Amino acid sequence: MEIDGEDDYFVKNTPPKNINEVERKTKEFMKYQQEKGRRIVLVTSGGTTVPLENQTVRFVDNFSAGTRGSASAEYFIENGYAVIFLYRQHSLRPYSRHYSHSKNCFLDMLDIDKDNIIVNDKYKESMKSILERYKKTKAENLLLEIDFFTVKDYFFYLNKITKILATMEEKSMYYLAAAVSDFFIPPERMVEHKIQSGEGALKLSLDQVPKFLKPLVSEWAPKGFIVSFKLETDPALLISKARKALKRYGHQIVIGNMLLTRKKVVHFITNDEERKIEMTEEELNNGIEIETKIISELIKKHDQWINQSEANN
Amino acid sequence: MEIDGEDDYFVKNTPPKNINEVERKTKEFMKYQQEKGRRIVLVTSGGTTVPLENQTVRFVDNFSAGTRGSASAEYFIENGYAVIFLYRQHSLRPYSRHYSHSKNCFLDMLDIDKDNIIVNDKYKESMKSILERYKKTKAENLLLEIDFFTVKDYFFYLNKITKILATMEEKSMYYLAAAVSDFFIPPERMVEHKIQSGEGALKLSLDQVPKFLKPLVSEWAPKGFIVSFKLETDPALLISKARKALKRYGHQIVIGNMLLTRKKVVHFITNDEERKIEMTEEELNNGIEIETKIISELIKKHDQWINQSEANN
Repeated sequence: MEIDGEDDYFVKNTPPKNINEVERKTKEFMKYQQEKGRRIVLVTSGGTTVPLENQTVRFVDNFSAGTRGSASAEYFIENGYAVIFLYRQHSLRPYSRHYSHSKNCFLDMLDIDKDNIIVNDKYKESMKSILERYKKTKAENLLLEIDFFTVKDYFFYLNKITKILATMEEKSMYYLAAAVSDFFIPPERMVEHKIQSGEGALKLSLDQVPKFLKPLVSEWAPKGFIVSFKLETDPALLISKARKALKRYGHQIVIGNMLLTRKKVVHFITNDEERKIEMTEEELNNGIEIETKIISELIKKHDQWINQSEANN
Repeated sequence: MEIDGEDDYFVKNTPPKNINEVERKTKEFMKYQQEKGRRIVLVTSGGTTVPLENQTVRFVDNFSAGTRGSASAEYFIENGYAVIFLYRQHSLRPYSRHYSHSKNCFLDMLDIDKDNIIVNDKYKESMKSILERYKKTKAENLLLEIDFFTVKDYFFYLNKITKILATMEEKSMYYLAAAVSDFFIPPERMVEHKIQSGEGALKLSLDQVPKFLKPLVSEWAPKGFIVSFKLETDPALLISKARKALKRYGHQIVIGNMLLTRKKVVHFITNDEERKIEMTEEELNNGIEIETKIISELIKKHDQWINQSEANN
């Protein structure tokens, strides 16, 4: 069965070199978590790129630092989930996100103290708590990280990982926070070498990427709990586009957010509800992140999803 | 005098908000270095972006991690130069580059030891030497870092900084390693909101950016020592395009490099010479970087440039 040409896509395009290694790691990780009785959430994060040349010098990118995904991964872990974190290379990652995109170089946090290099007092306390959580996560094998660069590699990984996690049925969640390109240049139209300047304007024609959310919901993981995101810049479009996506794909929830206020307000759109989740000024001033509210709401909904399905069996 | 519409560009486009602050910092930095009798090199680094919407969700980017620029800045500093480092946000920076784009999270390098957080023994020795050099650079005020994201902001900063440094005449060097976009969407054709999908293919038409190297060489810094780069993927084009650029702009040197071998081989193209600089397998295995050779060659040429001009006066 072909929907929007997605089967074709995985035939026409070349899989990433390490796809078998990712498959093996995902299966191992899932087996371990199942033995521990844990749920797993796949968190996708960061922007995807669309190369304009085979030997790529230029590409179209989507704005995303990976804040939403990397913060959410931490809160899922704190709530007992194991996380597969599928992220854009060099975008923010759980735990290290607190330091990596800062303009303050992490070398500024370090002092030479006789034979040791130590974190100086100014940063020590806050780093200690993050470091402890990070080490616990590693020790308990709660996080599997897989990185991508192009939208093509992202789709191959998404397809592979989703189909593996789907065997956990209702106990798997898919939190699709990556900013996925809507347009790409199909392989048969891609030029080999760097596009030369000096020959006037550059005309590009990009095709629409297949809407993989459709087969993900209906075929790859039909029993999973699936959360997608809708980012807009025009407030007039946000809710209607989010609702349209929910109807079109038939999954459980769309989280709508505006580019400029995405750290303060999100909208939960489900079949029978439309809810705004908002941060107070006080919460923001205290460094509380909206993802803590998002994740705790989602876990309640995931519980319901699991209970409902058990009741139906 | 208008060359390729560059005066027009700075009128039609909006300057970055902090342009006055960058001007002030650059002047202060230059004054300090002049009192110390130091030369200054402007190093540009990383790729530039071209937004496709005013409220930017998508942009065209140029592949560049900033390896060349960030490594070169360190070697300039080791050789007594003060460096203004104009770099793409989140690309590699001098010193921190040894850790920041690594897949190994820097949190993996840290251990909790009673009341302290310390760097563990495995990383300590190599980090100590980098940290010492970093702290010396800061203490001696040898590095001014300024970051950009779009090609527009890059051009505004380049223009401003170059014109200030130009007052140092021959003692200033311009090492233009940033991967600058050749195409952009002019402000009058830019859409306000996120481009919507679902309406078929995306047709983009990008104009050529003005070739600012021309006024930089002939007007902004006519006595400076100017080094530009040419990156290609097709070996048949590299040398001819590099020589063409040298003729067209009339500056001192073009460094040509291929995308796939840029860490092993570069070509120095000057008016009377064409030289290949190459790394041996042994050098590469020992962790020696090609930038150490590039910089030591350039400093010799800069010496000659200064001596020659003094002889002419």
